[in-house]
Amino acid sequence: MNTADLGLPVDVPSTALFTDQYELTMLQAALKAGTGDRRSVFEVFTRRLPEGRRYGVVAGTGRVLDAVENFRFDAGVLGFLRERNIVDETTLAWLADYRFTGDIWGYPEGEVYFPGSPILRVEGSFAECVLLETVILSILNHDSAIAAAASRMSSAAGDRPLIEMGARRTHELAAVAASRAAYVGGFATTSDLAAGFRYGIPTVGTSAHAFTLLHDNERDAFRAQVDSLGRGTTLLVDTYDVTEAVRMAVEVAGPELGAVRIDSGDLLLVAHRVRQQLDDLGATETKIVVTSDLDEYAIASLAAAPVDAYGVGTQLVTGSGHPTASMVYKLVARAHSAEPGAPLEPVAKKSLGAKSSMGGRKWAARREDAYGVAEAEVIGTGAVPDGLVEHQLQVELVKGGEVLAREPLDAVRDRHAAARARLPLSATQLSRGEAVIPTEYV
Amino acid sequence: MNTADLGLPVDVPSTALFTDQYELTMLQAALKAGTGDRRSVFEVFTRRLPEGRRYGVVAGTGRVLDAVENFRFDAGVLGFLRERNIVDETTLAWLADYRFTGDIWGYPEGEVYFPGSPILRVEGSFAECVLLETVILSILNHDSAIAAAASRMSSAAGDRPLIEMGARRTHELAAVAASRAAYVGGFATTSDLAAGFRYGIPTVGTSAHAFTLLHDNERDAFRAQVDSLGRGTTLLVDTYDVTEAVRMAVEVAGPELGAVRIDSGDLLLVAHRVRQQLDDLGATETKIVVTSDLDEYAIASLAAAPVDAYGVGTQLVTGSGHPTASMVYKLVARAHSAEPGAPLEPVAKKSLGAKSSMGGRKWAARREDAYGVAEAEVIGTGAVPDGLVEHQLQVELVKGGEVLAREPLDAVRDRHAAARARLPLSATQLSRGEAVIPTEYV
Repeated sequence: MNTADLGLPVDVPSTALFTDQYELTMLQAALKAGTGDRRSVFEVFTRRLPEGRRYGVVAGTGRVLDAVENFRFDAGVLGFLRERNIVDETTLAWLADYRFTGDIWGYPEGEVYFPGSPILRVEGSFAECVLLETVILSILNHDSAIAAAASRMSSAAGDRPLIEMGARRTHELAAVAASRAAYVGGFATTSDLAAGFRYGIPTVGTSAHAFTLLHDNERDAFRAQVDSLGRGTTLLVDTYDVTEAVRMAVEVAGPELGAVRIDSGDLLLVAHRVRQQLDDLGATETKIVVTSDLDEYAIASLAAAPVDAYGVGTQLVTGSGHPTASMVYKLVARAHSAEPGAPLEPVAKKSLGAKSSMGGRKWAARREDAYGVAEAEVIGTGAVPDGLVEHQLQVELVKGGEVLAREPLDAVRDRHAAARARLPLSATQLSRGEAVIPTEYV
Repeated sequence: MNTADLGLPVDVPSTALFTDQYELTMLQAALKAGTGDRRSVFEVFTRRLPEGRRYGVVAGTGRVLDAVENFRFDAGVLGFLRERNIVDETTLAWLADYRFTGDIWGYPEGEVYFPGSPILRVEGSFAECVLLETVILSILNHDSAIAAAASRMSSAAGDRPLIEMGARRTHELAAVAASRAAYVGGFATTSDLAAGFRYGIPTVGTSAHAFTLLHDNERDAFRAQVDSLGRGTTLLVDTYDVTEAVRMAVEVAGPELGAVRIDSGDLLLVAHRVRQQLDDLGATETKIVVTSDLDEYAIASLAAAPVDAYGVGTQLVTGSGHPTASMVYKLVARAHSAEPGAPLEPVAKKSLGAKSSMGGRKWAARREDAYGVAEAEVIGTGAVPDGLVEHQLQVELVKGGEVLAREPLDAVRDRHAAARARLPLSATQLSRGEAVIPTEYV
């Protein structure tokens, strides 16, 4: 990983500070009490999917691995913690040597998940594991929320490509992660150059209304764009009058014009009219791109319209109504003492209400029917039943502190498409519903 | 600004890549057409507030100034753009020398805003201004959305302090900006260490349920925490049974116990019971902190409960239902030619529907009644009417490319409190409504 000078508008010297203070105060108290060395198992899961959603999408795992690897307390960080009197000197000395030496298992990135799915399991001493809580949740909660929205949109779009263009609607670095998550969820391209730079996602973009307004008239603007970007470019045709603009676009670029973009109005109606007009002008190969406040429902409603590609912004980067997944990072088992080999004991919060959870280190498997369609998310502790061993979902990601494998983003994207395809057909219904398969505890 | 090696999980060498590709392709086409040098005025504004909201809060301006200052195309960035064939060599050469040399005026950070308020105005050549669109909008849309939610929450909380603890619910760097925006909106502290490091926001935190579960019993956990963090610490009392935990907390820490935290259940009911129990145990000074899925409505509903502080996570960092402000960056005027001194002409998109806007470089002033209460946001082009000159809202932020002034965050926070206090009383009603003052165009 290249961690060269980033010139970012936020300067934080390590992923170690993407951390809630209480992780450090718990560490200090546990070290003093002699309990920090107890072997511990933390699991990441969600108690429920966002209301009405039928499946979740695991995204961000690759970023979690980067964050764990770069979780170090250097002199700048330690100086800050000392100056603010956040932890004592014993704890600072411990942090100076910190690096995660434990194991991480998890659902591979791009997999789908359901309520209770143990999508990440972090094992090691309490001290080394508790510190990672905040940054792991930040990444998985954000990226999975975006990927879930992206997956619904890509399902609604079918074979038509989706362009991610939401950078301006979210934090500038959240935007980069959102592009990545959108790609995992099935988007084809992004407008965000940083996402192209960092993750190799194909980038696209041609012009905005400002470009038309800069010029003395629309014809000058179109000519300037075609002169510079070629006839294959996409001309934006809704600055003044769409019909007139389409006529002029084909006049300027010829029937080889790559595409026109429509960014306002009744897209269903306008797309039909523009298609007819383009065909009448002989521009039968010129594509139509639409980009106005789309979400998965608007995309679905345009399925029968002559649209060739969709650009999605706000609704993608805000998770289409659900900007965060509600994943938690819970201690589910720990040893009774710090002695090596001390057995793990399940633990769980016992309070009444919705915040209870199931203790113990869990395995997870997706049971399939005779046709290979998922029928249940099966979660348990102890031995995995015979028929489920080969359907287990968790893979080893980090062993003894070493990241085992990194994947190309295309592999993650393909995995998501394959996992979604193995769900029951109702998974991709856009209407509100329950999780498409039940979670069974054994 | 310190831009030293950040060790972040995203590596982007400059703020210049937080940019949609079309900004660069428009630049290329404008340079080729000779229109890139036309003097231009872009304005940031929103057509509407989020539904039901009565005012907006300008936040992120300080971060915008950092981003503009660091908007440079170094060898790494240029190499990427060349390799991907995103722009031509002429444009690459122009970008290599890029630095913004224009002027920026805007509402001072922390001010309130309304539909149409020109909260930022960027002036210079089209070429140098158009490039800044994406990163400016990313910052203002994110930070203002969070600050608006924070402002409603701090208004609902009255004199009781609010703790920002949403880092785990949003992108790890969005979390840092969210802490900053929350502070602007009136929050007192944050759990996010990176926000403390970067912005000097006071940080807090003691322990989570995992700490209790790590130990053999609640008493051991409380004792370990008090031994390490002192009697003034906050003990989390809802891991098992709240009544038993409160009893034990006071037994372990004595009546000097700093606070107890309740993170689940019916907070109104539980807070009353816990207060009574603490008082009966002689812990009359021990405070009660509540932290379970709070938003401004839940905070308001606890106004009569014996609660001393609120911790807010998810709803803060997701803007309490509105995770982004809908600000746009629009070309509102440009010269007819690139000649120095060529007069500016107003321009605006003319299409039907909601995306039209008003052309021309605008001033803005807040008209007040005889008691100093705001009664209208007045926006116009041309000369400012006499009675409004001293009520103008925009200040000069960047002159000839130089950032004029940076402010301590406390000054921004104080400005917001003062600006909100000058709004009509109904501004801080939580119920859904229209903008609390009308926008008038003159």
